[in-house]
Amino acid sequence: MPAQIPATALQLQSLVRADQVVELFLATVEVPEPGPDEVIIRVGAAPINPSDLGLLLAGADLDAAVFAGSADRPVVTAPLPEAAMRAMQGRVGVPMPVGNEGAGTVVAAGSAAAASALLGKTVAAAGGGMYSEYRCVPASLCLELPDGTSEFDGASSFVNPLTALGMVETMRLERHVALVHTAAASNLGQMLNRLCIAEQVPLVNIVRRQEQDELLRSAGASYVCNSTSAAFMDELTDALTATSATLAFDATGGGRLASQILTCMEAAATAAAGSYSRYGSAVHKQVYIYGSLDRGPTELTRNFGMAWGVGGWLLTPFLQRIGPDGIERLRRRVAAELTTTFASSYTDQVSLAGALQPGAVAGYARQATGSKYLIVPSG
Amino acid sequence: MPAQIPATALQLQSLVRADQVVELFLATVEVPEPGPDEVIIRVGAAPINPSDLGLLLAGADLDAAVFAGSADRPVVTAPLPEAAMRAMQGRVGVPMPVGNEGAGTVVAAGSAAAASALLGKTVAAAGGGMYSEYRCVPASLCLELPDGTSEFDGASSFVNPLTALGMVETMRLERHVALVHTAAASNLGQMLNRLCIAEQVPLVNIVRRQEQDELLRSAGASYVCNSTSAAFMDELTDALTATSATLAFDATGGGRLASQILTCMEAAATAAAGSYSRYGSAVHKQVYIYGSLDRGPTELTRNFGMAWGVGGWLLTPFLQRIGPDGIERLRRRVAAELTTTFASSYTDQVSLAGALQPGAVAGYARQATGSKYLIVPSG
Repeated sequence: MPAQIPATALQLQSLVRADQVVELFLATVEVPEPGPDEVIIRVGAAPINPSDLGLLLAGADLDAAVFAGSADRPVVTAPLPEAAMRAMQGRVGVPMPVGNEGAGTVVAAGSAAAASALLGKTVAAAGGGMYSEYRCVPASLCLELPDGTSEFDGASSFVNPLTALGMVETMRLERHVALVHTAAASNLGQMLNRLCIAEQVPLVNIVRRQEQDELLRSAGASYVCNSTSAAFMDELTDALTATSATLAFDATGGGRLASQILTCMEAAATAAAGSYSRYGSAVHKQVYIYGSLDRGPTELTRNFGMAWGVGGWLLTPFLQRIGPDGIERLRRRVAAELTTTFASSYTDQVSLAGALQPGAVAGYARQATGSKYLIVPSG
Repeated sequence: MPAQIPATALQLQSLVRADQVVELFLATVEVPEPGPDEVIIRVGAAPINPSDLGLLLAGADLDAAVFAGSADRPVVTAPLPEAAMRAMQGRVGVPMPVGNEGAGTVVAAGSAAAASALLGKTVAAAGGGMYSEYRCVPASLCLELPDGTSEFDGASSFVNPLTALGMVETMRLERHVALVHTAAASNLGQMLNRLCIAEQVPLVNIVRRQEQDELLRSAGASYVCNSTSAAFMDELTDALTATSATLAFDATGGGRLASQILTCMEAAATAAAGSYSRYGSAVHKQVYIYGSLDRGPTELTRNFGMAWGVGGWLLTPFLQRIGPDGIERLRRRVAAELTTTFASSYTDQVSLAGALQPGAVAGYARQATGSKYLIVPSG
């Protein structure tokens, strides 16, 4: 092991305790010797994605969080509601490293060609546990970044880019011709907007605020509907009629938004069909829920005929569906367009210890569209 | 046209009027000369299925129904709520014949071989408008019944038998190994129970009353769960664990039953997996809603991971999916087992005029499991 690599490093961990409390803290973990197919990454930047929050926060009640420990070794504890605790039974007593993805420099590598080729390179990695100063991961989980790409630019190379690509690919696999996206002003939403423009896929963006409407339109969006507008249902139906979109990806999950989208899709399909059908239109209308910004129940009014589906959508099963060749194709594209189509932006940058300060926890737990945290472990 | 066929016949029709009222009445319609590929059926028996009620009642408020007309020409009128009226725009002012299926005797036939071969035969027909004394339908929509089968036995040869078969076929097409069925003591449910026993497909029956539990168990059911029981979730989870059922067909639609089924499927899958997975089990869990006994919204709590789907299921698209050969295979099986596996029973038998009397309308509109009406148009 070269001298500049420490024997131990800090890692952010989340522990669900048997006393129904989640505890967030910085653990000191060993930096191992990499195996033949592994590399050691000095992590430069790792985003806090909504998909990290389930593992990190475990559904805790953060209004009752207690912040303790020292400035460089903070400890956050928060109680878990009964329902969250039931769902977490499988991880009680097991400290979990957190952070789906990040980017950094390969400072040590195993003997296998695929690993040793990465030594000294800037890579992105979907390795899990990326909220760490150093992280040992299989070389196969790394994406070598083009020369000159910074760790900052590469931090979000997987989750959002592959999700945006996955939405467009799913649309094609399931024979739809256009997309609807909610929480559309998010980092992912802006990325999807750029991707759909590049791919000439009509995209109906659903937002909640006027400035989000303006942000997307200034980025070239043709269809933006504000769900808080009194004319929302009519405006959405018009956009669906114009685009023939019959597939939506919904980040909110709870409430009636998925149902409203299906209702408007059915109105658009019925208008296009021109005649009455007792079971509604024959056009299949699909909403995939991929997030849970609203944790309340999904309410479906079912006034949209019988040709509809609502389901969960997750990146990993999608990647399994397209297989290794499909994944490789998407990874190459992400690497090539990391600072254009797939660029991310962050509103807040924190150290590992900074990620456990009250303001930061409240900030990322709120999941407000437009707010995005980047952890800089070696910062 | 032979002398015994009248020039006109009575037909039950449903009209949505522009003044937001549905009107049910007996129209006098012409009995046409059959085209080359058509036959004229003197309808002997036609069931009132839940799938007929949407067209017949149009979502009217039957508590406010007015019964007028004469004993042999009754007229029922009932107001349509605003939401129902919006959904019915396509049929305003157009009287609709009703009755998906029925059975009768072919009393006239066109010149084509397929039509003329049916002359004098007892047939079942999925012709629509079967609440008629005489009905002209394409010969291709007829199922010739085995010698000795009565019109009574043949009345329900399509909707319920093909739906039960469709559930089992869908299970196989979508790679599930067992089924869950709600409102399981219905005519369809009893049929599915017999079919699953014959096919050795594990079936979890969900009912609401103790006597329905007993009815199904006395018919050989292995798994019956009562959704009104305090231990329902535990009992359902146990049945799902025992059967590995990950596909449910739900007749209720509204409320939380679909969500509860998914929750219990996830509990069974998680217990089987044995280890914690942050996004829930990878096992895909599916609920198809094929009825709407509860017209309220479907509420999904989403505490069942990400690998799930809920959607509408309808017989016609399923039949399109399996194609003409598949349909023919299922039709033959139904004809052969019409008085055994696919036998139906009726609690009430009414004439066309009798179907528009207050007691009958209240009876079938209630859609109580165990109550089933048969219209006998020539009775």
